[in-house]
Amino acid sequence: MTRTVGIVGLGQVGGSLAAALRSGRDGWTVRAFDRRLSGVAAARDRGWVDAVAETPREAAEGADLVVLAAPVRGIRQLLRTLAPALVPGQVVTDVGSTKATILAEARKALPEGVAFVGGHPVAGTERSGLDSASPRLFEGRYCVLTPEPDTPAGALETVAGLWRAVGSEVVLLEPEVHDRVFAYVSHLPHAVAFAAVQAVHDAVTPRQVNLGGGSLRDLTRVATSSPELWRDVCLENRTALLEAIDDLVDRLGRLREAVDRADEREIERLLVPAGRARRTMWTP
Amino acid sequence: MTRTVGIVGLGQVGGSLAAALRSGRDGWTVRAFDRRLSGVAAARDRGWVDAVAETPREAAEGADLVVLAAPVRGIRQLLRTLAPALVPGQVVTDVGSTKATILAEARKALPEGVAFVGGHPVAGTERSGLDSASPRLFEGRYCVLTPEPDTPAGALETVAGLWRAVGSEVVLLEPEVHDRVFAYVSHLPHAVAFAAVQAVHDAVTPRQVNLGGGSLRDLTRVATSSPELWRDVCLENRTALLEAIDDLVDRLGRLREAVDRADEREIERLLVPAGRARRTMWTP
Repeated sequence: MTRTVGIVGLGQVGGSLAAALRSGRDGWTVRAFDRRLSGVAAARDRGWVDAVAETPREAAEGADLVVLAAPVRGIRQLLRTLAPALVPGQVVTDVGSTKATILAEARKALPEGVAFVGGHPVAGTERSGLDSASPRLFEGRYCVLTPEPDTPAGALETVAGLWRAVGSEVVLLEPEVHDRVFAYVSHLPHAVAFAAVQAVHDAVTPRQVNLGGGSLRDLTRVATSSPELWRDVCLENRTALLEAIDDLVDRLGRLREAVDRADEREIERLLVPAGRARRTMWTP
Repeated sequence: MTRTVGIVGLGQVGGSLAAALRSGRDGWTVRAFDRRLSGVAAARDRGWVDAVAETPREAAEGADLVVLAAPVRGIRQLLRTLAPALVPGQVVTDVGSTKATILAEARKALPEGVAFVGGHPVAGTERSGLDSASPRLFEGRYCVLTPEPDTPAGALETVAGLWRAVGSEVVLLEPEVHDRVFAYVSHLPHAVAFAAVQAVHDAVTPRQVNLGGGSLRDLTRVATSSPELWRDVCLENRTALLEAIDDLVDRLGRLREAVDRADEREIERLLVPAGRARRTMWTP
């Protein structure tokens, strides 16, 4: 049985999803919309998309599953725009990096009987756009889904099945837990990268930057990520992100004070547990 | 003509230097000391070291070139300890990540006629100790030297020749410029990694950490670096490091304020130039 997935937004994530579904030939017909219609046409020519939709609504209407693959605030906007076109039995999901505000919007906007399952495939890179899409983007990566107590089991299974079909491992989290965890493990590192790269840029020459080892390069890699996407993440996960920034600044402040006082013992007390903590997180 | 290099400290950097010189067979006889005598013996058995010295002084005495390969404050201590054993014509260099305080110590401690050339091979990894040493550690990497106006040209050439012999590109910087540049391109990223890893460790579980993408992993990679080494760097490059930390915290604070006010325009103003700046520093 072939089912239809309507993908709204063919950037890196939406485009990769289309590519992965088509290259898997696993029973999904892909109908896609993107603001850049030429991009969708190109995706169709590559065999990633079966049908080009000229509006978001056309992508969503009648689809068994609608995937909103836009930056976070674009997803909220789409929920409002598409709601009148959706009918009971359809399932809607998204790929946003924050979840609580999107779930609240879905609850408010969508008609009775249309199920929403929040999703977050943890698989983007610092690149963006269809040109950076790949059918293997999701292979071996996590996809976090954030069902609520009243989410129909069938809808959850449909969305989980989609992500498993493209090679991801599905993990379930409560929306608020998701947002707090990702504030620390993703949004904070991005905020630091954005801030650090500019501090360095204003302080030293590019030639001098290149004298450094890998630490700065690694720290700032994600600073080339889409600023629109990260503006949205900052705004949508505001509370949790502010908490994480304050936490980091507080710890940097403690190190700063210890260095300023030349307090050797306190500096050690602050540095030594970090290596141990890092080793519990990942093997090197 | 064979010359003798006395290496004091056979950790990752000292051990790699011994290994590289021996594997290059390029006219240096290596005499080495380390607090862990068994390590030096093992290095001799591997053919990295010609002679085992039982004290730092024994490694330095009569050597054409003395390389101090310890953490930064250890280097300063060694300059004081070894000074009485050194005679005019000998050249001393070091591998410390900070330069101004070491140069001041050398100027104060060393006898007339013993030349000191500050050195910083930019080639360590987050690992440490002889087991992480490699004869190829310096290949294709920069080595910064920080000669002063009165540094004898011959001494500078001896030290530069050593680093070129092991595959490094030698770059000259003034000591204060070196310290300011490395505060930004290396010491700050390490301070951030140490602080961030602990913030994350206390806020989320290891399993949740693994849900994140590469941004946190990259940001925190260097948090497993030697805490003793980095305690010393913090203390020895205090002024420049504090300035860099304050700069970063200030920029994070501006982003924090903009997010708190939900000031979309200001967030964009802060994020957009970062990608451009990063691209001027390295190609992706």
